Amino acid sequence: MQLGFVGLGNMGKPMARNLARAGHQVTVFNRTHSVAQELSREGARMANTPADAARNEIVITMLADDHAVESVTFGDKGLLSALPKGSLHISMSTISPELARRLLAAHSEHGQQFISAPVFGRPEAAAAAKLFIVVAGERDSIAKAKPVFDALGQRVFEIDQHPDHANLVKLSGNFLIMCVLESLGEVFAVAQKAGIDPKSVFEVLSGTLFGAPAYTNYGPRIIDRQFSPAGFRMPLGLKDIRLMMQAAESHSAPMPFANVIRDHFLGAIANGHGDLDWSAMTLEIQRSAGLA
Amino acid sequence: MQLGFVGLGNMGKPMARNLARAGHQVTVFNRTHSVAQELSREGARMANTPADAARNEIVITMLADDHAVESVTFGDKGLLSALPKGSLHISMSTISPELARRLLAAHSEHGQQFISAPVFGRPEAAAAAKLFIVVAGERDSIAKAKPVFDALGQRVFEIDQHPDHANLVKLSGNFLIMCVLESLGEVFAVAQKAGIDPKSVFEVLSGTLFGAPAYTNYGPRIIDRQFSPAGFRMPLGLKDIRLMMQAAESHSAPMPFANVIRDHFLGAIANGHGDLDWSAMTLEIQRSAGLA
Amino acid sequence: MQLGFVGLGNMGKPMARNLARAGHQVTVFNRTHSVAQELSREGARMANTPADAARNEIVITMLADDHAVESVTFGDKGLLSALPKGSLHISMSTISPELARRLLAAHSEHGQQFISAPVFGRPEAAAAAKLFIVVAGERDSIAKAKPVFDALGQRVFEIDQHPDHANLVKLSGNFLIMCVLESLGEVFAVAQKAGIDPKSVFEVLSGTLFGAPAYTNYGPRIIDRQFSPAGFRMPLGLKDIRLMMQAAESHSAPMPFANVIRDHFLGAIANGHGDLDWSAMTLEIQRSAGLA
Amino acid sequence: MQLGFVGLGNMGKPMARNLARAGHQVTVFNRTHSVAQELSREGARMANTPADAARNEIVITMLADDHAVESVTFGDKGLLSALPKGSLHISMSTISPELARRLLAAHSEHGQQFISAPVFGRPEAAAAAKLFIVVAGERDSIAKAKPVFDALGQRVFEIDQHPDHANLVKLSGNFLIMCVLESLGEVFAVAQKAGIDPKSVFEVLSGTLFGAPAYTNYGPRIIDRQFSPAGFRMPLGLKDIRLMMQAAESHSAPMPFANVIRDHFLGAIANGHGDLDWSAMTLEIQRSAGLA
Repeated sequence: MQLGFVGLGNMGKPMARNLARAGHQVTVFNRTHSVAQELSREGARMANTPADAARNEIVITMLADDHAVESVTFGDKGLLSALPKGSLHISMSTISPELARRLLAAHSEHGQQFISAPVFGRPEAAAAAKLFIVVAGERDSIAKAKPVFDALGQRVFEIDQHPDHANLVKLSGNFLIMCVLESLGEVFAVAQKAGIDPKSVFEVLSGTLFGAPAYTNYGPRIIDRQFSPAGFRMPLGLKDIRLMMQAAESHSAPMPFANVIRDHFLGAIANGHGDLDWSAMTLEIQRSAGLA
Repeated sequence: MQLGFVGLGNMGKPMARNLARAGHQVTVFNRTHSVAQELSREGARMANTPADAARNEIVITMLADDHAVESVTFGDKGLLSALPKGSLHISMSTISPELARRLLAAHSEHGQQFISAPVFGRPEAAAAAKLFIVVAGERDSIAKAKPVFDALGQRVFEIDQHPDHANLVKLSGNFLIMCVLESLGEVFAVAQKAGIDPKSVFEVLSGTLFGAPAYTNYGPRIIDRQFSPAGFRMPLGLKDIRLMMQAAESHSAPMPFANVIRDHFLGAIANGHGDLDWSAMTLEIQRSAGLA
Repeated sequence: MQLGFVGLGNMGKPMARNLARAGHQVTVFNRTHSVAQELSREGARMANTPADAARNEIVITMLADDHAVESVTFGDKGLLSALPKGSLHISMSTISPELARRLLAAHSEHGQQFISAPVFGRPEAAAAAKLFIVVAGERDSIAKAKPVFDALGQRVFEIDQHPDHANLVKLSGNFLIMCVLESLGEVFAVAQKAGIDPKSVFEVLSGTLFGAPAYTNYGPRIIDRQFSPAGFRMPLGLKDIRLMMQAAESHSAPMPFANVIRDHFLGAIANGHGDLDWSAMTLEIQRSAGLA
Repeated sequence: MQLGFVGLGNMGKPMARNLARAGHQVTVFNRTHSVAQELSREGARMANTPADAARNEIVITMLADDHAVESVTFGDKGLLSALPKGSLHISMSTISPELARRLLAAHSEHGQQFISAPVFGRPEAAAAAKLFIVVAGERDSIAKAKPVFDALGQRVFEIDQHPDHANLVKLSGNFLIMCVLESLGEVFAVAQKAGIDPKSVFEVLSGTLFGAPAYTNYGPRIIDRQFSPAGFRMPLGLKDIRLMMQAAESHSAPMPFANVIRDHFLGAIANGHGDLDWSAMTLEIQRSAGLA
C-alpha cells in the first residue's frame, strides 16, 4: 500500500521501518529531518510537510502528545488539507479521547476516515513488530488498516466503533501500570524499613498472583532504583495520568488512586527527577519513608 | 508425624484433611465441635482443648485473626502450656507481625519452636493442596516443617529467619490484591460512564500486561458485580489493610494507596455490604461515580 | 468617573448599582438584556456590546468563568478592540492566573492597562458594599482604580505588581473555604455516628479556636443540610478547585487536600447534587459514612 | 476542696498551681518527683503514689496519653483502688473515647464517679486560667466539678452525659487544627513557588474569612518555619490523629483528610523532624513541592 507516516521518535521509527520492510511504500515526515533521512536511505520517501505525507491511502501519526498531533493535523500544511477523500488517518499516539473526537469530526467533515489505534509496547517491541494494538472506529476503516497492523503488532484488540474509546482504553492501561508502580513502591518501602529484602518479597509476588509483565518489567527496576536510561520519561507519565483524570472528570468519575499517582509524579519532578523513567515516581514513596 | 491442627474453617478443614490423607496422625481442635467430628469420622483424633492438640511434635494454627490465635495460644488450656519442649508451632494464619514477634518470644521462653507460614490461596486451592506457602523462622524449624508443607502446598517461599517477616510479606500480598481491586474498579467505572464495555477493556488488560491471577480472578467478578458468595469477606479485608497500615506506621512509612482502600472498605461496610466478598469494596467506586 | 461594567449576575448587578450610586457614570453590558434594562431605569447607560462598554476610562468585568471573560475580551466586538489607549480593564472575576497573564499581555500590546481585583463576599456583601478586594498590578493602575474600590468594598488588600497573583490568592481563599467544608463535614459525620449532637460540637469549635466567618457561615448549613437555595453552586466550586489544582500543577506542587475536595465535588455531582450550594459536597462524606 | 492532681507536665503543673491558688487543698503526684517538690514548696501536698493522691473528693488526671492514664488508674497503687466511694475522677487528658468508656465502667463498678473534661489551650493559657473546658458525664458529677473548672478555665462547654463524647469532641478539635495546618501549608507552598509572598496571602486570609486563633496562631509559624521550641510535639499530633481515625473507624466513617494528615506526620517523623512542633508536618508539603 501507499502509506504516509508522521512522527519518527523512539516508537515511530521502528514502526515505519517495519512497514517498509513489509513491502509498503512509505512516505515519512519528521520535524527533525535527519531521522527521516536515515529511513530514506532504506527506501522510504521523505516528505517536507505533513501534507506531503498525507497524499496516500493511509496516513499514520505516531507523536508525543495532543499538541503534536493537533499541529500536524490542523496546522498549516497539515494532514487535513491534503488527505484524499476516502483515505484514512490512523492515530497511533497516546492522545486524549477528546482530541480523538475532534479528529473524527474534522476528518468526517472532509470526507476522510479516522480511527484510533494506540499501542502497548516499548521501543524494542515496536522493532520486533510485537506491539499490542487497541483499535476503535468504523468497521470498514479498521478492515482497511489490517495490513498496517499485521506489519506492526502481535495482536489487535478491537473495541467498538468510537475511535476515542481506544484512546481511553490505552490511558486506562497506562494508569494500571502506574498503579503497579505505586503499589510495589509502597510494599518495597515498608519491607525495606522492616529489614526484609525486597527481592524476596518480589519473588513471592511474581511467583504467585502477580506474575504478569507489568510486575516483572518494573519490580526489579524499582528495587534496584534503575531509573536511567528512561524507557518512558516522567513528564510523559504525568501527561498520561492528567489525560486519564480529565477523561474521568468529564464523566464525573472520581479516581482516588490517580490522585496519589499524580502527586507522586509532581513531587518527583519538583525534586529534580524529571529526566528519569516514569517508575522513578516511586522515589517519592522512598523519600516520604525517610529512605531516599 | 504426630500433628495437632487448630482451626477448621474454610481453609483449615481442607488443610487438616490433606495432612491426614498424607499419612500424618492429626489431632484436630475447633471451637465448633461439629466440624471436628466430621474430620474425626475420616480418621482424625478430636481434641477438647487447644492444649490437647498441642501434645505433638508439631501444632499448626489456622485461624481468622490475631485475637483467635492469641486465645488458643495464651489462653487457659492454650497451646503454650502443653506444647512439649523442642516441639514446633507453625502459625499459618494471616496475623500481625507484632503478634508473630510475641509468639516467638513466648515459645522461646518455654523452650518451644515457632515459625510463621501464612499461605496464598482460596479454599479450593487448599483442598487441592495447591497453596503457596510463605515461611520464615529458624532454618531447623523450617526443615522440620517440610512434610507439612509438602502435603499442603505447590510451592514454598522461604524469606529469612524472622517469623514476623513472613506475616508482613503475606499482608503485602493481600494489600497488592486490594490495589488490583481498586485500580480495576476505577478503570471499569470510567469505561462504563464513557459508554465502553468493561469486558472489552478487561480483555485488553488481561491479554497484554496484566495477565496474572490477581487480575483474572477478580476482573470478571467486579464487572459482573458477583460479590456473593464471598470467597473472602469484607471485614477480613478491612482487618488485613489495617494490619498492613499498622505495620507500616510502626516503621514510619506512609502508604497512600492503603488509605484509599481502607476508606472504601469502611464506606462499603457503612452502606451495608459487610457480608459480601472483599472485591465489593469496588461498590464504593461505582457509587461515587453515580453508578450504584 | 466614566465606567464600563460587564457582567450583571448575582454579584455584578449590586456592584454596578453601587458604582452608579456613588456618582459614577456607568455603562453596563450583560448578555441577557433584561438585567441591564433594570439598571438603566436607575440611571445606567446600556451598551449593546462589550466594546460599547469599553469606551471609558475604566471597564470592569465580573463574569462566571474564564470562558466568559475570554469571549467578552477577545471576541468579536470585545473590550480589547475598543478600550482607549491608557484606559484600564479591572478583572474582578475569579479566573485562572493563566488567563490573567494572557489578559495583561494582550492589553499591554494594545497600550491599555490591566489589573486583577477579585473579591471575597456573597451577593449580600456586594449589595452592602462590604466586599473584600484583593488587587494586584501596576501601582499606577491600582491608584486609578481606588474610587471604584471605595464604592464596592470594605477593605482592599494589595498583593504585588503581577495581576495573576491576585487571582491565585483568591483561588487560595476559595480552596481554604472548601477545606473548612470538608473538615467540618468529616467531624460532623463521625459525631453523628457516635451519637453526639453536631450542634454541640460546632458550639465548642466556634467558641474556641474556629470562630471565623468561614466556619460560622457554613457550619450550621452543613449540620442542617440546608443546601438550597445555592449561594455558590457546586459546578462553580468544582471549577475553582480545578483552577487551583492547575495553578499548583504548573508549579509542580502537589495539593493532597485538593484531591479529596475535587473527588467529593465530582461524586456529589455524579449523584445528582449539581444544583445545590457548594457546601453540599459534604453529602459525599455523609454518604460514605452510611448517613445519606 | 480536697483535690488530688496526677500529672505535672507542661499543662498539669500550671493547672495544679491555679487550683492551689484558688484555695483548694491539692495533693499532687508526678512520676518525676522534682516537679512535685516545686509545687510542694508552694503549699501543695506530695503524694508517693497515684493512690495517695486519690484519697480526696476529687482526683484529676492530666497526662500524656492513654497508656499513662491507664497505668495511674488501673495499675498497682492506682486511683481505682483508693478513690473513696462517691468521689469523682476528672480526666482532663486527651485520651481515646474507648478508654473513657472503660474508665467510666471501672469507676462505676467501684461506686465512684467519672467525667471527661479535656481542654483546649496551650501551657500559657493553662497558666492564665484561660483554658476552654469540654466536659461530658453525669449532671451531678459535672456540678461537683464546677469549682475546679472555675479555677482553670475561661469557659466550659457541656456536651452530654457520656464522658467519652467529650473526648471525641476534643479529638475533633485537634483534627480541625491539623486541617488548618495542612491547608495553610498547601496554600503557602503554591504561593511561594508562584513567587507570591506567603505573608501577603496570609494577611488576606486572616483579614477576611479566616480570622480565628487556629489560623492566627499557626499561619506565621508555618511561614517562618518556626517549629522549635515545640508547643505540642509531632508524636502527640500523630497520636491524636490516630485516636481520631480509630474512633471514626469504630463507627465505619471514612475521614480522607485525616489520611493526608497522618501520612504527613509519618513522613516528617521518618525524615527526622519528630522533635519539632506539630505544625512541622507542613515540612512534608514543602518537601514534596521541592522547597525543603
